[in-house]
Amino acid sequence: MMKFRYLPLLAAFVLAASPLLAQVSYESILGSDGDPANWPTYSGSYHGQHYREIDQINRQNVADLQLSWVYQGSSTNTWQSTPIVVDGVMYVTEGPDNVVALDAVTGREFWKHEHKLPARINVCCGKINRGVALLGDLVYMGTLDGYLKALDAKTGRLVWEKKIVDNDEGYALAMAPLVVKDKIIIGPAGGEYGIRGFLDAYDAKTGERVWRFNTIPGPGEKGHETWENDAWKTGGGSAWVTGSYDPELNLLYWGVGNPSPDWNPEVRPGDNLYTDSVIALNPDTGELQWHFQFTPNDEWDYDSVQVPVLADMEYQGRQRKLMLWGNRNAFFYVLDRTDGTFLLGKPFAKQTWAKGLDDKGRPIKAPGMSPSEAGTEVFPSVQGATNWYAPAYSPRTKLFYLTAWVDYWGLFYTGEPVVYTPGNRYDGSAVARIYPDAMEEKEPGTGAIRALDPLSGEARWEFSSLGVSESGLLATSSDLLFSGSMEGHFFAIDATNGELLWRTQLGGRVANSPITYMANGRQQVTVASGDSLFTFRLKQ
Amino acid sequence: MMKFRYLPLLAAFVLAASPLLAQVSYESILGSDGDPANWPTYSGSYHGQHYREIDQINRQNVADLQLSWVYQGSSTNTWQSTPIVVDGVMYVTEGPDNVVALDAVTGREFWKHEHKLPARINVCCGKINRGVALLGDLVYMGTLDGYLKALDAKTGRLVWEKKIVDNDEGYALAMAPLVVKDKIIIGPAGGEYGIRGFLDAYDAKTGERVWRFNTIPGPGEKGHETWENDAWKTGGGSAWVTGSYDPELNLLYWGVGNPSPDWNPEVRPGDNLYTDSVIALNPDTGELQWHFQFTPNDEWDYDSVQVPVLADMEYQGRQRKLMLWGNRNAFFYVLDRTDGTFLLGKPFAKQTWAKGLDDKGRPIKAPGMSPSEAGTEVFPSVQGATNWYAPAYSPRTKLFYLTAWVDYWGLFYTGEPVVYTPGNRYDGSAVARIYPDAMEEKEPGTGAIRALDPLSGEARWEFSSLGVSESGLLATSSDLLFSGSMEGHFFAIDATNGELLWRTQLGGRVANSPITYMANGRQQVTVASGDSLFTFRLKQ
Repeated sequence: MMKFRYLPLLAAFVLAASPLLAQVSYESILGSDGDPANWPTYSGSYHGQHYREIDQINRQNVADLQLSWVYQGSSTNTWQSTPIVVDGVMYVTEGPDNVVALDAVTGREFWKHEHKLPARINVCCGKINRGVALLGDLVYMGTLDGYLKALDAKTGRLVWEKKIVDNDEGYALAMAPLVVKDKIIIGPAGGEYGIRGFLDAYDAKTGERVWRFNTIPGPGEKGHETWENDAWKTGGGSAWVTGSYDPELNLLYWGVGNPSPDWNPEVRPGDNLYTDSVIALNPDTGELQWHFQFTPNDEWDYDSVQVPVLADMEYQGRQRKLMLWGNRNAFFYVLDRTDGTFLLGKPFAKQTWAKGLDDKGRPIKAPGMSPSEAGTEVFPSVQGATNWYAPAYSPRTKLFYLTAWVDYWGLFYTGEPVVYTPGNRYDGSAVARIYPDAMEEKEPGTGAIRALDPLSGEARWEFSSLGVSESGLLATSSDLLFSGSMEGHFFAIDATNGELLWRTQLGGRVANSPITYMANGRQQVTVASGDSLFTFRLKQ
Repeated sequence: MMKFRYLPLLAAFVLAASPLLAQVSYESILGSDGDPANWPTYSGSYHGQHYREIDQINRQNVADLQLSWVYQGSSTNTWQSTPIVVDGVMYVTEGPDNVVALDAVTGREFWKHEHKLPARINVCCGKINRGVALLGDLVYMGTLDGYLKALDAKTGRLVWEKKIVDNDEGYALAMAPLVVKDKIIIGPAGGEYGIRGFLDAYDAKTGERVWRFNTIPGPGEKGHETWENDAWKTGGGSAWVTGSYDPELNLLYWGVGNPSPDWNPEVRPGDNLYTDSVIALNPDTGELQWHFQFTPNDEWDYDSVQVPVLADMEYQGRQRKLMLWGNRNAFFYVLDRTDGTFLLGKPFAKQTWAKGLDDKGRPIKAPGMSPSEAGTEVFPSVQGATNWYAPAYSPRTKLFYLTAWVDYWGLFYTGEPVVYTPGNRYDGSAVARIYPDAMEEKEPGTGAIRALDPLSGEARWEFSSLGVSESGLLATSSDLLFSGSMEGHFFAIDATNGELLWRTQLGGRVANSPITYMANGRQQVTVASGDSLFTFRLKQ
């Protein structure tokens, strides 16, 4: 018997090219909440909730999840990027500084844009990039050596590029840009290099700069009075995580990084605005509408570079437009996002640097917590009680979810002279001494996913683990919460009670945030682990 | 409501170390056919069938396979290694030349042994290693720079090492060694560098060499007469894939590589024994018992470095001990393995180099097929009609399965002077011209998994694909056949008819062979793709 079987499916995988017609308009990003097919912007939607109305994968069937595809990166750099998905095409950055466009159904590569980096790059924390933005036919990325690039979404070919910062001076572009209307919003990393930070808006078509907001105000700018001497010139205030946007209020919200130098506050007396703050800007003009500073005169590198989460709910007796913020400084904040009014602040993890917050939300610093020559033990550590990875909010459970470093401590040193030289670190301490090198003598601390009730700031439940995590969260309307671990686990828990429902092991650190989308009628969940990207779905 | 849930499972993954008590004895390798828990030697068992009596995963449930764990390699080198598994511990090599010991249940690393390679290594085809052998408490590996190393299986620490070849002269160790009784059998790669090949046996305890069989016989050795002039001194005859063993006959079977220089047969008139042959040796003494040469005076680089498959069946009227061999030269052979008697030879893929075989199995060369200055088009290509990746044989279906490059052509060039200098390539042609560089003008050819009936050499069925594959095969007693593709697919087909039952996409080339084992009461299937290792199992 001679029986030949051909494999139309495999064949199709090899040859069939999906038409690369992916496009995104500003309106489609506005409407992304009602569009489970796409994940068109860094946080999924403008409100930064990392939440989707999608329920094909639910609590009953999540344990049946199967691996759909893997995309293996072309370097061994751990990915911190979160993909975007539009019309069946996934756009994601991979180390050191490439963009790839993939078939969101199969993982097959449509194109790769390799950005050539110079041999020497001044970055504090690895050659990483957190993702892209898409508007119309163009894909936007920032590069570590300071270019804003616009690529043809169909081919990956360069349409235009602008050098907007100088990496020789420690500036680098690593965040996923944000599209608002016809503008591309982006800011630089470099808080460890004594940069002077800003947030910029560029014309999406031409790349011309439309406005710049200086996160470190210069002479004549409001807030300049919070800097003494010339400290503002090297004041830090980076912006390395993508912000959020409220189209009704027409307000752009962005978190600002730590002041420079990191651990020597004595060289920069004052509150050091707008470091460690959230700023609310008019996206058309870049004008500041309000700000809230979480950690004035920061001594511990508590960047406020988390994603602002915008949620509307009844609060203290009336319906309010809120901003929920789990800060690196270990406090959970609720602000009124129309004007920045402080409503609530409560620790979500162990902290020793503040005795508490006053009724305006300003911290009352605890004595004896300043960095010292001998090393001062402070909670949270230099990595914070949370960080860049996405928190989530579910309008169903009305809970705010975040990855917490529950009781992870740091030793903060200072006393070494700090001298600013362009392009060199300006952080006030030997880098090797930042991290808890006494770890062998002392437990490093544990981690958890915590579900906070915004009304009280109390944890409704927690999902605890022995290790800390750099994974963000994804919430769905089927009451699932997806996250990962340092050790490479990827798992789903019940968003209502924290019960573990499914897990797998991906072999590398999860240092980004999972996303979900529909493709070919099936819900997909994607996450990066180590140097690879993994997508799961249910059996057909 | 404050509800705290701890994660004992994740916690267990982080802390719990399986006791590293893995041990393998010669007897346990002999008995591995009846032991689905382990995969204690390169081909699973001495008979080289890449088959297991194991059926938890079967044709009914294979479509439910889930990802259990991933191990991400520490370089971007594509893995060609096949793991071994003993008592819940997996030992596998990763690029460039490391050994890792993993928890076979979770993928967690117990230890990694990093072999430091010199900056310059003379290898034809990438920095790869195909795996390890295990005997007692020692793990054995060959290194590209010529060391045979014995590592402590519990810790990865070096117990002893012997430099057995000189990479400066083009010798390299890349195969998984084979344990037979108290000896470690290993041979070198280097056929493109004018080496003089051999197969060696070392005392497993001390690393002392017990015997050497010269695959290129010197003066006074049988077969030397098949070499003219001094061609034997640089005659090639590498041994870079692991052989098989028949304990009843006490015969060791090994495939031998091509003669050097590869494409200039005029400098080495004669049959060039024992290149492109299978040799049958007494494993105690290294004495040759018989040989069979597939391609005398090879002109096309048709290494016979496939795994010899040993199978017993009724053949031409009586029960016989057979050897089944799908050769790189595109012929499928059946030999009587007691004495090497040729029983059958039939093409399993398109070939143009031979008009046929005579009744002793010796090929009758077709005219006009010699490499030429203009380039001669020959089927199969320089990559052969199959290659190092494991074929499989199922005693249930009585079919021989192999990965075939069905009609993949090559252009063979010669005419350039070949001068031997130690450590430099000695292959008779510019490397850049070996591969079908006219590909853009001409289809490169297709691939298939073919199921051959050893009684006739006819294909019973085939599983066709548009691309060729470097993946080996795994057959199970539940009539499943697992394999992978260049494009990163990993899939299961019905071993009785070739029907596709399940597939996933792993993101990297599969250039090794899947294995299966039991761990924690569950059947696991493991395969490498790109620079990572993937393990699948059913939901509990």
